[in-house]
Amino acid sequence: MTHFESELAALKQKLLLMASHAESAVNNAIKALVDRDDDLARKVAEDDDKIDHLEQEVDAACIALLAKAPLATQLRLITSAMKIARDLERVGDEATTIARRSLDLSQEPQLKAYVDIPRMATMAMAMLNDALGAFVNGDTARARAVIPRDKDVDQLNKQLYRELASFMIEKPTTITRCLNLMTISKALERIADHAKNVAEDVVYLYEARDIRHLGATAA
Amino acid sequence: MTHFESELAALKQKLLLMASHAESAVNNAIKALVDRDDDLARKVAEDDDKIDHLEQEVDAACIALLAKAPLATQLRLITSAMKIARDLERVGDEATTIARRSLDLSQEPQLKAYVDIPRMATMAMAMLNDALGAFVNGDTARARAVIPRDKDVDQLNKQLYRELASFMIEKPTTITRCLNLMTISKALERIADHAKNVAEDVVYLYEARDIRHLGATAA
Repeated sequence: MTHFESELAALKQKLLLMASHAESAVNNAIKALVDRDDDLARKVAEDDDKIDHLEQEVDAACIALLAKAPLATQLRLITSAMKIARDLERVGDEATTIARRSLDLSQEPQLKAYVDIPRMATMAMAMLNDALGAFVNGDTARARAVIPRDKDVDQLNKQLYRELASFMIEKPTTITRCLNLMTISKALERIADHAKNVAEDVVYLYEARDIRHLGATAA
Repeated sequence: MTHFESELAALKQKLLLMASHAESAVNNAIKALVDRDDDLARKVAEDDDKIDHLEQEVDAACIALLAKAPLATQLRLITSAMKIARDLERVGDEATTIARRSLDLSQEPQLKAYVDIPRMATMAMAMLNDALGAFVNGDTARARAVIPRDKDVDQLNKQLYRELASFMIEKPTTITRCLNLMTISKALERIADHAKNVAEDVVYLYEARDIRHLGATAA
Protein backbone atom coordinates (compact mmCIF):
# COMPACT_ATOMS: atom_id res chain seq x y z
CA MET A 1 0.00 0.00 0.00
CA THR A 2 1.43 3.40 -0.95
CA HIS A 3 1.34 6.33 1.45
CA PHE A 4 -1.46 7.85 -0.63
CA GLU A 5 -3.49 4.66 -0.43
CA SER A 6 -3.11 4.48 3.34
CA GLU A 7 -4.32 8.09 3.57
CA LEU A 8 -7.38 7.11 1.53
CA ALA A 9 -7.95 4.16 3.85
CA ALA A 10 -7.73 6.51 6.84
CA LEU A 11 -10.32 8.77 5.18
CA LYS A 12 -12.69 5.83 4.85
CA GLN A 13 -12.15 4.96 8.51
CA LYS A 14 -12.97 8.49 9.59
CA LEU A 15 -16.14 8.39 7.55
CA LEU A 16 -17.13 5.15 9.26
CA LEU A 17 -16.43 6.66 12.66
CA MET A 18 -18.74 9.52 11.67
CA ALA A 19 -21.34 7.00 10.57
CA SER A 20 -21.21 5.17 13.90
CA HIS A 21 -21.69 8.46 15.78
CA ALA A 22 -24.64 9.38 13.54
CA GLU A 23 -26.21 5.95 13.98
CA SER A 24 -25.85 6.07 17.76
CA ALA A 25 -27.35 9.54 17.78
CA VAL A 26 -30.50 8.41 15.99
CA ASN A 27 -30.80 5.21 18.02
CA ASN A 28 -30.38 7.10 21.27
CA ALA A 29 -32.85 9.79 20.20
CA ILE A 30 -35.49 7.16 19.51
CA LYS A 31 -34.66 5.37 22.77
CA ALA A 32 -34.99 8.69 24.62
CA LEU A 33 -38.40 9.19 23.01
CA VAL A 34 -39.72 5.73 23.79
CA ASP A 35 -38.27 5.52 27.31
CA ARG A 36 -39.02 9.19 28.04
CA ASP A 37 -35.38 9.51 29.07
CA ASP A 38 -34.61 13.25 29.21
CA ASP A 39 -30.94 12.82 30.13
CA LEU A 40 -30.37 10.70 27.07
CA ALA A 41 -32.22 13.21 24.88
CA ARG A 42 -30.02 16.04 26.17
CA LYS A 43 -26.90 13.94 25.58
CA VAL A 44 -27.88 13.40 21.92
CA ALA A 45 -28.27 17.14 21.37
CA GLU A 46 -24.93 17.88 23.07
CA ASP A 47 -23.00 15.18 21.23
CA ASP A 48 -24.02 16.58 17.83
CA ASP A 49 -20.87 18.75 17.98
CA LYS A 50 -18.70 15.68 17.58
CA ILE A 51 -20.39 14.78 14.31
CA ASP A 52 -20.10 18.37 13.08
CA HIS A 53 -16.38 18.40 13.79
CA LEU A 54 -15.85 15.06 12.10
CA GLU A 55 -17.43 16.48 8.95
CA GLN A 56 -14.91 19.32 8.99
CA GLU A 57 -12.06 16.86 9.46
CA VAL A 58 -13.29 14.74 6.56
CA ASP A 59 -13.54 17.81 4.35
CA ALA A 60 -10.05 19.00 5.25
CA ALA A 61 -8.62 15.54 4.59
CA CYS A 62 -10.44 15.45 1.23
CA ILE A 63 -9.04 18.77 0.10
CA ALA A 64 -5.52 17.67 1.08
CA LEU A 65 -5.94 14.39 -0.78
CA LEU A 66 -7.51 15.88 -3.91
CA ALA A 67 -4.32 17.72 -4.73
CA LYS A 68 -2.45 14.43 -4.79
CA ALA A 69 -5.01 12.13 -6.38
CA PRO A 70 -3.92 11.03 -9.83
CA LEU A 71 -6.76 8.67 -10.75
CA ALA A 72 -10.42 9.26 -11.57
CA THR A 73 -11.47 6.51 -9.14
CA GLN A 74 -9.58 8.24 -6.35
CA LEU A 75 -11.16 11.58 -7.19
CA ARG A 76 -14.56 9.94 -7.06
CA LEU A 77 -13.80 8.35 -3.70
CA ILE A 78 -12.73 11.69 -2.27
CA THR A 79 -15.67 13.71 -3.56
CA SER A 80 -18.07 10.94 -2.53
CA ALA A 81 -16.54 11.01 0.94
CA MET A 82 -17.32 14.72 1.19
CA LYS A 83 -20.92 14.14 0.14
CA ILE A 84 -21.43 11.20 2.46
CA ALA A 85 -19.96 13.23 5.33
CA ARG A 86 -22.48 15.99 4.64
CA ASP A 87 -25.33 13.49 4.69
CA LEU A 88 -24.13 11.96 7.95
CA GLU A 89 -23.85 15.41 9.47
CA ARG A 90 -27.50 15.98 8.55
CA VAL A 91 -28.47 12.63 10.07
CA GLY A 92 -26.91 13.95 13.29
CA ASP A 93 -29.02 17.12 13.00
CA GLU A 94 -32.18 15.08 12.58
CA ALA A 95 -31.25 13.02 15.65
CA THR A 96 -30.98 16.30 17.56
CA THR A 97 -34.42 17.32 16.33
CA ILE A 98 -35.86 14.01 17.52
CA ALA A 99 -34.14 14.40 20.89
CA ARG A 100 -35.47 17.97 21.36
CA ARG A 101 -39.01 16.98 20.48
CA SER A 102 -38.72 14.00 22.86
CA LEU A 103 -37.90 16.44 25.64
CA ASP A 104 -41.04 18.42 24.81
CA LEU A 105 -43.10 15.25 24.68
CA SER A 106 -41.97 14.00 28.05
CA GLN A 107 -43.45 17.15 29.63
CA GLU A 108 -46.94 15.78 28.96
CA PRO A 109 -48.61 12.38 29.40
CA GLN A 110 -47.78 9.99 26.59
CA LEU A 111 -50.41 10.00 23.84
CA LYS A 112 -50.27 6.26 23.14
CA ALA A 113 -47.67 3.53 22.79
CA TYR A 114 -45.30 4.35 19.97
CA VAL A 115 -45.45 1.71 17.25
CA ASP A 116 -44.98 3.38 13.87
CA ILE A 117 -42.15 5.67 14.89
CA PRO A 118 -39.82 2.94 16.17
CA ARG A 119 -40.73 0.96 13.04
CA MET A 120 -39.80 3.89 10.77
CA ALA A 121 -36.58 4.32 12.76
CA THR A 122 -35.69 0.67 12.25
CA MET A 123 -36.35 0.96 8.51
CA ALA A 124 -34.37 4.18 8.12
CA MET A 125 -31.44 2.90 10.15
CA ALA A 126 -31.35 -0.39 8.22
CA MET A 127 -31.17 1.66 5.00
CA LEU A 128 -28.29 3.72 6.37
CA ASN A 129 -26.53 0.61 7.61
CA ASP A 130 -26.87 -1.11 4.24
CA ALA A 131 -25.69 1.99 2.35
CA LEU A 132 -22.60 2.20 4.57
CA GLY A 133 -21.99 -1.55 4.31
CA ALA A 134 -22.18 -1.19 0.52
CA PHE A 135 -19.68 1.66 0.76
CA VAL A 136 -17.22 -0.44 2.77
CA ASN A 137 -17.49 -3.50 0.55
CA GLY A 138 -17.98 -1.80 -2.82
CA ASP A 139 -21.25 -3.70 -3.09
CA THR A 140 -23.32 -1.68 -5.56
CA ALA A 141 -26.10 -4.28 -5.70
CA ARG A 142 -26.65 -3.73 -1.98
CA ALA A 143 -26.52 0.03 -2.49
CA ARG A 144 -29.08 -0.13 -5.31
CA ALA A 145 -31.40 -2.22 -3.15
CA VAL A 146 -31.48 0.62 -0.58
CA ILE A 147 -32.95 3.17 -2.97
CA PRO A 148 -36.55 1.93 -3.47
CA ARG A 149 -36.96 1.45 0.31
CA ASP A 150 -37.03 5.22 0.71
CA LYS A 151 -40.56 5.15 -0.72
CA ASP A 152 -41.72 2.83 2.09
CA VAL A 153 -40.51 5.24 4.74
CA ASP A 154 -42.15 8.13 2.85
CA GLN A 155 -45.41 6.19 2.85
CA LEU A 156 -45.26 5.52 6.59
CA ASN A 157 -44.49 9.18 7.24
CA LYS A 158 -47.47 10.28 5.11
CA GLN A 159 -49.74 7.76 6.80
CA LEU A 160 -48.66 8.88 10.26
CA TYR A 161 -49.12 12.53 9.23
CA ARG A 162 -52.70 11.81 8.18
CA GLU A 163 -53.43 9.83 11.34
CA LEU A 164 -52.01 12.52 13.58
CA ALA A 165 -53.88 15.25 11.66
CA SER A 166 -57.18 13.37 12.17
CA PHE A 167 -56.37 12.77 15.80
CA MET A 168 -55.78 16.49 16.35
CA ILE A 169 -59.13 17.34 14.82
CA GLU A 170 -60.89 14.83 17.09
CA LYS A 171 -59.01 15.87 20.23
CA PRO A 172 -57.62 19.38 20.03
CA THR A 173 -55.97 18.95 23.45
CA THR A 174 -53.47 16.61 21.78
CA ILE A 175 -52.37 19.13 19.13
CA THR A 176 -48.99 20.03 20.66
CA ARG A 177 -48.08 16.38 21.14
CA CYS A 178 -49.25 15.43 17.65
CA LEU A 179 -47.16 18.24 16.15
CA ASN A 180 -44.07 16.99 17.99
CA LEU A 181 -44.70 13.47 16.74
CA MET A 182 -45.15 14.77 13.17
CA THR A 183 -41.79 16.51 13.38
CA ILE A 184 -40.13 13.31 14.64
CA SER A 185 -41.75 11.29 11.87
CA LYS A 186 -40.55 13.83 9.30
CA ALA A 187 -37.01 13.68 10.77
CA LEU A 188 -37.00 9.91 10.26
CA GLU A 189 -38.23 10.37 6.71
CA ARG A 190 -35.28 12.71 6.10
CA ILE A 191 -32.83 10.24 7.63
CA ALA A 192 -34.08 7.68 5.10
CA ASP A 193 -33.51 10.32 2.38
CA HIS A 194 -29.93 10.76 3.53
CA ALA A 195 -29.43 6.98 3.52
CA LYS A 196 -30.71 6.95 -0.07
CA ASN A 197 -28.28 9.75 -0.97
CA VAL A 198 -25.41 7.73 0.49
CA ALA A 199 -26.53 4.67 -1.50
CA GLU A 200 -26.58 6.74 -4.70
CA ASP A 201 -23.12 8.07 -3.93
CA VAL A 202 -21.87 4.50 -3.45
CA VAL A 203 -23.23 3.44 -6.85
CA TYR A 204 -21.63 6.50 -8.42
CA LEU A 205 -18.35 5.83 -6.65
CA TYR A 206 -17.99 2.25 -7.84
CA GLU A 207 -19.78 2.37 -11.17
CA ALA A 208 -19.02 5.94 -12.21
CA ARG A 209 -22.74 6.31 -13.00
CA ASP A 210 -24.91 9.09 -11.67
CA ILE A 211 -28.23 7.49 -10.76
CA ARG A 212 -29.77 10.38 -8.87
CA HIS A 213 -33.16 11.60 -9.97
CA LEU A 214 -33.82 8.56 -12.16
CA GLY A 215 -36.77 7.31 -10.13
CA ALA A 216 -37.06 3.92 -8.47
CA THR A 217 -37.64 1.80 -11.57
CA ALA A 218 -34.86 3.25 -13.68
CA ALA A 219 -32.39 3.05 -10.77
CA MET B 1 -6.98 33.05 -19.63
CA THR B 2 -5.84 29.45 -19.96
CA HIS B 3 -8.17 26.73 -21.16
CA PHE B 4 -8.42 25.48 -17.56
CA GLU B 5 -9.35 28.92 -16.29
CA SER B 6 -12.08 29.29 -18.90
CA GLU B 7 -13.45 25.90 -17.84
CA LEU B 8 -13.54 27.14 -14.24
CA ALA B 9 -15.33 30.30 -15.39
CA ALA B 10 -17.88 28.14 -17.25
CA LEU B 11 -18.42 26.14 -14.06
CA LYS B 12 -19.18 29.34 -12.14
CA GLN B 13 -21.63 30.37 -14.86
CA LYS B 14 -23.44 27.05 -14.65
CA LEU B 15 -23.71 27.44 -10.91
CA LEU B 16 -25.23 30.89 -11.36
CA LEU B 17 -27.70 29.52 -13.89
CA MET B 18 -28.67 26.93 -11.29
CA ALA B 19 -29.03 29.70 -8.73
CA SER B 20 -31.33 31.71 -10.96
CA HIS B 21 -33.54 28.65 -11.52
CA ALA B 22 -33.65 27.97 -7.78
CA GLU B 23 -34.48 31.60 -7.01
CA SER B 24 -37.27 31.69 -9.58
CA ALA B 25 -38.65 28.44 -8.20
CA VAL B 26 -38.97 29.86 -4.69
CA ASN B 27 -40.32 33.20 -5.88
CA ASN B 28 -42.89 31.48 -8.07
CA ALA B 29 -43.88 29.08 -5.31
CA ILE B 30 -44.58 31.99 -2.97
CA LYS B 31 -46.41 33.85 -5.72
CA ALA B 32 -48.51 30.73 -6.37
CA LEU B 33 -49.34 30.58 -2.66
CA VAL B 34 -50.29 34.23 -2.32
CA ASP B 35 -52.18 34.48 -5.62
CA ARG B 36 -53.68 30.98 -5.23
CA ASP B 37 -52.36 30.26 -8.72
CA ASP B 38 -52.50 26.46 -9.17
CA ASP B 39 -50.99 26.48 -12.65
CA LEU B 40 -47.94 28.30 -11.38
CA ALA B 41 -47.64 25.91 -8.42
CA ARG B 42 -47.75 22.93 -10.77
CA LYS B 43 -45.13 24.53 -13.01
CA VAL B 44 -42.75 24.96 -10.05
CA ALA B 45 -43.03 21.27 -9.16
CA GLU B 46 -42.48 20.22 -12.80
CA ASP B 47 -39.50 22.52 -13.35
CA ASP B 48 -37.61 21.05 -10.40
CA ASP B 49 -36.14 18.49 -12.84
CA LYS B 50 -34.12 21.22 -14.51
CA ILE B 51 -32.42 22.12 -11.24
CA ASP B 52 -31.75 18.45 -10.50
CA HIS B 53 -30.09 17.98 -13.87
CA LEU B 54 -28.00 21.10 -13.48
CA GLU B 55 -26.64 19.70 -10.23
CA GLN B 56 -25.55 16.55 -12.04
CA GLU B 57 -23.88 18.65 -14.75
CA VAL B 58 -22.05 20.73 -12.16
CA ASP B 59 -20.85 17.58 -10.39
CA ALA B 60 -19.64 15.99 -13.62
CA ALA B 61 -17.80 19.18 -14.58
CA CYS B 62 -16.22 19.30 -11.12
CA ILE B 63 -14.94 15.74 -11.29
CA ALA B 64 -13.46 16.42 -14.74
CA LEU B 65 -11.82 19.62 -13.51
CA LEU B 66 -10.47 18.17 -10.26
CA ALA B 67 -8.17 15.85 -12.16
CA LYS B 68 -6.57 18.85 -13.81
CA ALA B 69 -6.51 21.38 -10.97
CA PRO B 70 -2.99 22.08 -9.82
CA LEU B 71 -3.65 24.73 -7.16
CA ALA B 72 -5.28 24.58 -3.73
CA THR B 73 -7.46 27.60 -4.55
CA GLN B 74 -8.77 25.82 -7.63
CA LEU B 75 -9.49 22.67 -5.65
CA ARG B 76 -11.42 24.75 -3.16
CA LEU B 77 -13.41 26.44 -5.92
CA ILE B 78 -14.34 23.10 -7.42
CA THR B 79 -15.34 21.40 -4.16
CA SER B 80 -17.23 24.51 -3.08
CA ALA B 81 -19.07 24.46 -6.39
CA MET B 82 -20.22 20.91 -5.69
CA LYS B 83 -21.46 21.89 -2.25
CA ILE B 84 -23.21 25.02 -3.46
CA ALA B 85 -24.87 23.01 -6.22
CA ARG B 86 -26.19 20.57 -3.64
CA ASP B 87 -27.62 23.42 -1.58
CA LEU B 88 -29.26 24.98 -4.61
CA GLU B 89 -30.74 21.63 -5.52
CA ARG B 90 -32.29 21.48 -2.04
CA VAL B 91 -33.63 25.02 -2.44
CA GLY B 92 -35.41 23.73 -5.52
CA ASP B 93 -36.86 20.86 -3.49
CA GLU B 94 -38.15 23.26 -0.86
CA ALA B 95 -39.75 25.37 -3.59
CA THR B 96 -41.53 22.23 -4.76
CA THR B 97 -42.75 21.57 -1.23
CA ILE B 98 -44.12 25.12 -1.03
CA ALA B 99 -45.80 24.73 -4.41
CA ARG B 100 -47.44 21.42 -3.44
CA ARG B 101 -48.74 22.80 -0.16
CA SER B 102 -50.04 25.86 -2.01
CA LEU B 103 -52.08 23.53 -4.20
CA ASP B 104 -53.56 21.93 -1.07
CA LEU B 105 -54.26 25.33 0.43
CA SER B 106 -56.08 26.64 -2.61
CA GLN B 107 -58.66 23.83 -2.20
CA GLU B 108 -60.03 25.61 0.87
CA PRO B 109 -60.92 29.22 1.73
CA GLN B 110 -57.89 31.30 2.63
CA LEU B 111 -57.28 31.42 6.38
CA LYS B 112 -56.18 35.06 6.44
CA ALA B 113 -53.98 37.40 4.42
CA TYR B 114 -50.42 36.10 4.31
CA VAL B 115 -48.01 38.53 5.93
CA ASP B 116 -45.28 36.60 7.73
CA ILE B 117 -44.69 34.03 5.01
CA PRO B 118 -43.95 36.52 2.22
CA ARG B 119 -41.76 38.38 4.72
CA MET B 120 -39.81 35.22 5.55
CA ALA B 121 -39.51 34.49 1.83
CA THR B 122 -38.10 37.96 1.21
CA MET B 123 -35.57 37.51 4.01
CA ALA B 124 -34.50 34.03 2.90
CA MET B 125 -34.19 35.06 -0.74
CA ALA B 126 -32.17 38.18 0.18
CA MET B 127 -29.79 35.90 2.10
CA LEU B 128 -29.42 33.58 -0.87
CA ASN B 129 -28.94 36.50 -3.21
CA ASP B 130 -26.24 38.02 -1.00
CA ALA B 131 -24.46 34.69 -0.59
CA LEU B 132 -24.40 34.22 -4.36
CA GLY B 133 -23.33 37.83 -4.93
CA ALA B 134 -20.49 37.25 -2.46
CA PHE B 135 -19.55 34.12 -4.40
CA VAL B 136 -19.41 36.00 -7.70
CA ASN B 137 -17.40 38.92 -6.32
CA GLY B 138 -15.25 37.08 -3.79
CA ASP B 139 -16.75 39.37 -1.17
CA THR B 140 -16.31 37.46 2.11
CA ALA B 141 -17.52 40.39 4.24
CA ARG B 142 -20.85 40.18 2.43
CA ALA B 143 -20.87 36.41 2.89
CA ARG B 144 -20.14 36.71 6.62
CA ALA B 145 -22.97 39.21 7.00
CA VAL B 146 -25.42 36.61 5.69
CA ILE B 147 -24.76 34.11 8.46
CA PRO B 148 -26.35 35.77 11.53
CA ARG B 149 -29.51 36.56 9.53
CA ASP B 150 -30.37 32.86 9.58
CA LYS B 151 -31.34 33.30 13.23
CA ASP B 152 -33.96 35.92 12.29
CA VAL B 153 -35.64 33.56 9.87
CA ASP B 154 -35.50 30.80 12.50
CA GLN B 155 -37.20 33.14 14.96
CA LEU B 156 -39.97 34.02 12.53
CA ASN B 157 -40.50 30.35 11.76
CA LYS B 158 -40.77 29.50 15.47
CA GLN B 159 -43.11 32.42 16.08
CA LEU B 160 -45.34 31.40 13.18
CA TYR B 161 -45.28 27.80 14.39
CA ARG B 162 -46.51 28.90 17.83
CA GLU B 163 -49.19 31.15 16.35
CA LEU B 164 -50.46 28.46 14.05
CA ALA B 165 -50.42 25.88 16.86
CA SER B 166 -52.55 28.20 19.04
CA PHE B 167 -54.85 28.94 16.14
CA MET B 168 -55.42 25.23 15.59
CA ILE B 169 -56.33 24.72 19.21
CA GLU B 170 -58.87 27.59 19.08
CA LYS B 171 -60.35 26.53 15.75
CA PRO B 172 -59.82 22.85 14.99
CA THR B 173 -61.48 23.27 11.59
CA THR B 174 -58.36 25.14 10.47
CA ILE B 175 -55.95 22.32 11.37
CA THR B 176 -55.25 21.10 7.84
CA ARG B 177 -54.60 24.62 6.59
CA CYS B 178 -52.42 25.48 9.57
CA LEU B 179 -50.35 22.32 9.01
CA ASN B 180 -49.79 23.28 5.38
CA LEU B 181 -48.71 26.77 6.40
CA MET B 182 -46.33 25.30 9.00
CA THR B 183 -44.73 23.16 6.34
CA ILE B 184 -44.31 26.18 4.07
CA SER B 185 -42.80 28.21 6.90
CA LYS B 186 -40.39 25.36 7.68
CA ALA B 187 -39.43 25.16 3.98
CA LEU B 188 -38.51 28.85 4.04
CA GLU B 189 -36.50 28.33 7.20
CA ARG B 190 -34.58 25.58 5.39
CA ILE B 191 -33.99 27.81 2.37
CA ALA B 192 -32.40 30.34 4.73
CA ASP B 193 -30.26 27.46 6.11
CA HIS B 194 -29.08 26.64 2.60
CA ALA B 195 -28.28 30.31 1.97
CA LYS B 196 -26.22 30.27 5.17
CA ASN B 197 -24.41 27.13 3.96
CA VAL B 198 -23.59 28.85 0.68
CA ALA B 199 -22.28 31.89 2.58
CA GLU B 200 -20.06 29.63 4.71
CA ASP B 201 -18.76 27.92 1.58
CA VAL B 202 -17.92 31.32 0.09
CA VAL B 203 -15.90 32.32 3.16
CA TYR B 204 -14.11 28.97 3.04
CA LEU B 205 -13.47 29.33 -0.66
CA TYR B 206 -11.84 32.75 -0.47
CA GLU B 207 -10.27 32.64 2.99
CA ALA B 208 -9.48 28.93 3.26
CA ARG B 209 -11.11 28.98 6.68
CA ASP B 210 -13.84 26.63 7.77
CA ILE B 211 -16.33 28.71 9.75
CA ARG B 212 -19.13 26.19 9.99
CA HIS B 213 -20.45 25.35 13.44
CA LEU B 214 -18.72 28.30 15.09
CA GLY B 215 -21.92 30.03 16.12
CA ALA B 216 -22.97 33.51 15.12
CA THR B 217 -20.56 35.49 17.32
CA ALA B 218 -17.44 33.51 16.50
CA ALA B 219 -18.25 33.60 12.79
